[in-house]
Amino acid sequence: MVAGQPIRKADLLIEKNRIAKIAPGISAPGVEVIEADGLLAMPGFVQTHIHLCQTLFRNLANDLELLDWLKKRIWPLEAAHTESSLAISARLGLLELIKSGTTAILDMGSVYRAETILNEVAKAGLRASVGVTFMDEGEDVPEELKRPFAESLNYAEKLAKTWHGAEDGRIRINLAPRFALSCSEDSLRTIAETARELGLMVHTHASENRKEVEQVRISHGMGNVEYYHKLGMTGDHLALAHCIWLSEREIGILAETGTRVLHCPSSNLKLGSGIANIPRYRQRGILCSLGADGAPCNNNLSAFTEMRLAALIQKPIHGPKVLPAREVVQMATSDGARALHWQEDIGTLEEGKKADLILLDLRRPHTEPNLFTEWNDLYAQLVYAASGENVQTVIVDGKVLMQNRKVLTIDEGETLALARKELEQLIGRANLRE
Amino acid sequence: MVAGQPIRKADLLIEKNRIAKIAPGISAPGVEVIEADGLLAMPGFVQTHIHLCQTLFRNLANDLELLDWLKKRIWPLEAAHTESSLAISARLGLLELIKSGTTAILDMGSVYRAETILNEVAKAGLRASVGVTFMDEGEDVPEELKRPFAESLNYAEKLAKTWHGAEDGRIRINLAPRFALSCSEDSLRTIAETARELGLMVHTHASENRKEVEQVRISHGMGNVEYYHKLGMTGDHLALAHCIWLSEREIGILAETGTRVLHCPSSNLKLGSGIANIPRYRQRGILCSLGADGAPCNNNLSAFTEMRLAALIQKPIHGPKVLPAREVVQMATSDGARALHWQEDIGTLEEGKKADLILLDLRRPHTEPNLFTEWNDLYAQLVYAASGENVQTVIVDGKVLMQNRKVLTIDEGETLALARKELEQLIGRANLRE
Repeated sequence: MVAGQPIRKADLLIEKNRIAKIAPGISAPGVEVIEADGLLAMPGFVQTHIHLCQTLFRNLANDLELLDWLKKRIWPLEAAHTESSLAISARLGLLELIKSGTTAILDMGSVYRAETILNEVAKAGLRASVGVTFMDEGEDVPEELKRPFAESLNYAEKLAKTWHGAEDGRIRINLAPRFALSCSEDSLRTIAETARELGLMVHTHASENRKEVEQVRISHGMGNVEYYHKLGMTGDHLALAHCIWLSEREIGILAETGTRVLHCPSSNLKLGSGIANIPRYRQRGILCSLGADGAPCNNNLSAFTEMRLAALIQKPIHGPKVLPAREVVQMATSDGARALHWQEDIGTLEEGKKADLILLDLRRPHTEPNLFTEWNDLYAQLVYAASGENVQTVIVDGKVLMQNRKVLTIDEGETLALARKELEQLIGRANLRE
Repeated sequence: MVAGQPIRKADLLIEKNRIAKIAPGISAPGVEVIEADGLLAMPGFVQTHIHLCQTLFRNLANDLELLDWLKKRIWPLEAAHTESSLAISARLGLLELIKSGTTAILDMGSVYRAETILNEVAKAGLRASVGVTFMDEGEDVPEELKRPFAESLNYAEKLAKTWHGAEDGRIRINLAPRFALSCSEDSLRTIAETARELGLMVHTHASENRKEVEQVRISHGMGNVEYYHKLGMTGDHLALAHCIWLSEREIGILAETGTRVLHCPSSNLKLGSGIANIPRYRQRGILCSLGADGAPCNNNLSAFTEMRLAALIQKPIHGPKVLPAREVVQMATSDGARALHWQEDIGTLEEGKKADLILLDLRRPHTEPNLFTEWNDLYAQLVYAASGENVQTVIVDGKVLMQNRKVLTIDEGETLALARKELEQLIGRANLRE
């Protein structure tokens, strides 16, 4: 993914947590060797919008649109989390992410118990920015999910001290007001100020659904992005998930302020929200990266699924040449890293960068035949044909998290069994509505 | 997929090639037992539009629209096939189909050497209707792919005698005029008559691309489906791939004549063709089934990919409740069987039907947690979360084709190696154009 660099055959030397050298025939006596002959090494995927706390709810909320989906299912389920169900939800999500080649995420975190997610991230070995979610108001928000703003802010500042930059920089904290409808105006303004003071990113949702946009307009007399802009939130530290229903003026605000768009194609289709005009945003210079969102609106967490859909859904609208495969792979790797201000460390395979990389085995029926001729487009292979199944090895921060499809940092069998048990109890506690 | 029948826990007894009994606790001393505790048994997927001859071209034709895609890549590549490259192309496709749980297909076949594909189908064990492709005219069609109509018709009649109903009914022949632009009016009329006489299906493309529709209109003064109707082709033996750009009058013709729509969502998006209005067609009572089309316009052959996309792409247009997951699974199984007039034998798991079924292991990170509660929708799990990776065992016509993900009828390693070798030589022969 380095501009102008062709795909090449080489060895890659990792020293501690960094890529020390990329060259053919490296000799380094005494180092541990991972035999990768015939495999493709590439930067791990960076997914910039994830809800680890929702993984346990996969398959519990289908054929609903955003506000019903939140009020009837997701909020009651989130409100019913205990520490142990939240831990397993995060662990299951991290397991799935590792198995499908994602090495870094921007997660929305949790209103309470964000440290439970942080502990799971620390153990799993993924690179992650985890959010402290802010919800201080909003229609139909369960009381268990609401938290007075001052308390949330205090909690976020406390967590930032311990966790922001932890694990040699592998873990970060972000401030995550849920969306305009669940936070007061004063809260949003203060979050923006605090984020600037502490050097944290702000991670929120915007303009996902037409009813949501209408409600923001009724309450505040303007579009969602205009409203965030008025409150001083916009800028290159602000990352907005979805951004489907934007006015030309709002597109201009994003472009001028360097605000990031986090594109979630599966989620946007499944909730019937719409299709974000990513080619237009990119043409205006807006940085767009990808995310699977949460398991219940997808219902997977695979970067391959999001890449494929991100490319395909634009083609009937803008023609088959739009978003060529290489650009989509860039959105899922180096642009994701840039969106999170992590581009100095990750997003490409370059000497000096942190060793966050994956090895793919494309020698499988669904990704064959592979020839490295001028007629083959390896990026198209990745975007259209490959899947999590092709990921063989995952390395984050120089540490092997998965080898030969066996995840080394999480016990897969135990996690699946615990997930079923915790979900059964959680459904019993949750106040679900038809 | 039997109307009104819930998902249940049971044993399934296969005698010869049929399902003899479905009930809990079947005792059948001496029979071979496949332990499927914890697995999901379901009818194998029926894919109603496939081009096995193109599997070798996966990843060689990206970011192009239909007519360029055909003229610059697909036709020159098809024209360069030898018997051995065609055999491997079909074998690789069959291997991928089996590994992702498809048990029956409607294939477009080939102008020449359709028996090469038929032999591969016979060996692989899949249920298939294979086409004799008709191309007797058309702009930019390579000479090697054109064949005088009388010769093609004679060839089709000869193949039908040997192959239609072969392997105890597992193999069928269809007549496959490529599309309106590659066949003369007389040919199409005669194909329709011959199909009725011999009891064969007609399998073709219609109204995929706006330029194609425009060219049909220039040549014949009417829409593609109107034109087929005028020639006496429409009816319940006619299966039309794509059907994106139809007038209301044409939708009426399909509904009144019982003509089948073969929906190929990946292909339709990737070539920038458009989105077929499947909810509208289904509302009018038109039978709609699914197909992956060929590898170079997808770039996979998995029914899971098509199910997911078929559901998702309609939701931003028609709302999140449209095409609920159960209906999509029905399109991919029992409706596919009905489309091919194969519903007496396959498409559901019922006593007396042929044993075409798959066993899925959903106990994987990307499809967990699974609980059989009122809140879980197992169909949504299949449509949105599951993938070919979950298919553990495949049985067609009572014969095990894959067990524990090992395909028993095709040598996987040898096929992949041969595919690379054949493709390399084929690219050397093909007259590819940028």
